[in-house]
Amino acid sequence: MKLATLRNGRPDGQLVVVSRDLTRYVSASRIVPNLQAALDEWKALYPALSALAAELDAGAVAGQPFDPDMAAAPLPRAYQWIDGAGYLSHLERVRSLKGSKNAELQTSRPLLYQGGSDSLSGPTDAITVPEADLALDFEAEVAVITGPVPMRATREQAAAAIRLVTVCNDVSLRKLVVDDLQNGFGFFHAKPSTSFAPVVMTPESLGDAWRDNRLHLPVRVQINDALFGQPNAGIDMHFDFAALIVEAARTRKLAAGTIIGSGTISNRHDEPLPTRRDGIGFACIAEARTVEKLKYGRARTPFLKPGDQVRIAAIGPDGQPVFGEIDQRVVLL
Amino acid sequence: MKLATLRNGRPDGQLVVVSRDLTRYVSASRIVPNLQAALDEWKALYPALSALAAELDAGAVAGQPFDPDMAAAPLPRAYQWIDGAGYLSHLERVRSLKGSKNAELQTSRPLLYQGGSDSLSGPTDAITVPEADLALDFEAEVAVITGPVPMRATREQAAAAIRLVTVCNDVSLRKLVVDDLQNGFGFFHAKPSTSFAPVVMTPESLGDAWRDNRLHLPVRVQINDALFGQPNAGIDMHFDFAALIVEAARTRKLAAGTIIGSGTISNRHDEPLPTRRDGIGFACIAEARTVEKLKYGRARTPFLKPGDQVRIAAIGPDGQPVFGEIDQRVVLL
Repeated sequence: MKLATLRNGRPDGQLVVVSRDLTRYVSASRIVPNLQAALDEWKALYPALSALAAELDAGAVAGQPFDPDMAAAPLPRAYQWIDGAGYLSHLERVRSLKGSKNAELQTSRPLLYQGGSDSLSGPTDAITVPEADLALDFEAEVAVITGPVPMRATREQAAAAIRLVTVCNDVSLRKLVVDDLQNGFGFFHAKPSTSFAPVVMTPESLGDAWRDNRLHLPVRVQINDALFGQPNAGIDMHFDFAALIVEAARTRKLAAGTIIGSGTISNRHDEPLPTRRDGIGFACIAEARTVEKLKYGRARTPFLKPGDQVRIAAIGPDGQPVFGEIDQRVVLL
Repeated sequence: MKLATLRNGRPDGQLVVVSRDLTRYVSASRIVPNLQAALDEWKALYPALSALAAELDAGAVAGQPFDPDMAAAPLPRAYQWIDGAGYLSHLERVRSLKGSKNAELQTSRPLLYQGGSDSLSGPTDAITVPEADLALDFEAEVAVITGPVPMRATREQAAAAIRLVTVCNDVSLRKLVVDDLQNGFGFFHAKPSTSFAPVVMTPESLGDAWRDNRLHLPVRVQINDALFGQPNAGIDMHFDFAALIVEAARTRKLAAGTIIGSGTISNRHDEPLPTRRDGIGFACIAEARTVEKLKYGRARTPFLKPGDQVRIAAIGPDGQPVFGEIDQRVVLL
């Protein structure tokens, strides 16, 4: 089942069911008005949503043409956005940049930060920055949306709470990361609005691409139409989503509609940019720059500037974006 | 105008208008179902809510008896909870405990952290801890709820966005603070669900007690019926709420329903516990312990343990709680 949220002038948008091939949609409003409301009563509403998806895919419901430009973030505002650090090679590559000092803590249990969730960006929303020189970076990640999770959840409870899967762009202002970390209170100014792909899917509907609590698909990143990276999200994910959720629930319960990010997808290799057609590349600029520093003595790849385009998509076996595509331009406020 | 959210089995509860003396309430459901929905259309709905409050206070509407035990947090789940550090003497007192290293950063601009907002506790909810020895502390704070704030808001825009005022308890697990800060990603496990007083008030309705973007009232803290502190929230608040909101909006807009905390209320003095009837005392245990260490060479006041009771209330000129009272017991999971 594929779901999306269309802009309708209301803060939470309108929930729609999208066809498997992403060409058509049908409103879910006769079942539930928006995605948060669906997550609040997921078990009761799932059968009707699922049946509507089956009708749409079978052609029994015609639907309307699906245009990703109409899509908001699946949850345009969420009660919680927790970003994890599932891929250790991301941490290893950026550690020097971030001035984080305790490597040991980071491998025994996953790092998490509490992100802002009041204004999440849709797939084609501009990335609006207040200044041009804040070292703007993207971070391509997998994200899951959960049902309620009890405090001290087991791995089994955590895995069973995963309702929906998608990809996101954890927009980062690298120049502000150091201040955020140095002051001791964690990420704040360095992490403005995160962006989401137009479509979320249930783990079951991903078939073989969802197993071991990981998404086993390459996530393709293109900057200004050049391939930047296509690391496989199922490879080198040291902490899977069950581990991230268990860690998040160590001292608290998690409400339905909690979004958990995988951290920047990162596969181990030492090939600098440009990424060959069959290469792996990177899912953020900071990692590409670290590899360049090691190889050439200095970073070559610039951070994003106003006018630049970022495209991110998880690619299915047929070569097509599974959740649709994030396609954003950088704009100065 | 005083508002509260009563439990009704739904995640967002039911919005009610409460009489000035906190004895009676009337449902606001003919105007708007819950507080977030009211904040989403504040300017359109404010006149009707305000008129209902006037009718209730005039006795034109009888209402029903108001029982704080029926109250959830004003926003039982919120899209954003940002806690600031407005009182520098709190930072000065706890800095040694927290291992934070950059004192200069903390005084030029207010520190902020992104708190979890998916499950906020009501005034009489238990404080549920997963283990008894996590050095459980309370932090009595003032909190405001805002309307929408644009990125790079001015002080005037920030001040004008303050819709509601109350007090809260930023529950803290001190034993986990060091790990949270050392790993570089900021508070997470150390800050479980924050608790709120039963009632929120508009700044206008606070009269002289709200000026200069600060709440000028003593906030009384009692632990197991002993007076712990009664610092005045209007004194020594170095960064007022306009400053905290401006800082929060440096790189992002803030959605309607954003809650901003003042940080632990803290007045400068060096008198250890016990607090005399006319004394100032402390609004968290960590500060009391720091003063004890300086005076006696060791901390005497224990952290909270299961069974302990925490009461927090802002006290009006008539000696009565203005927002009602937070009254929580500590319970082991």
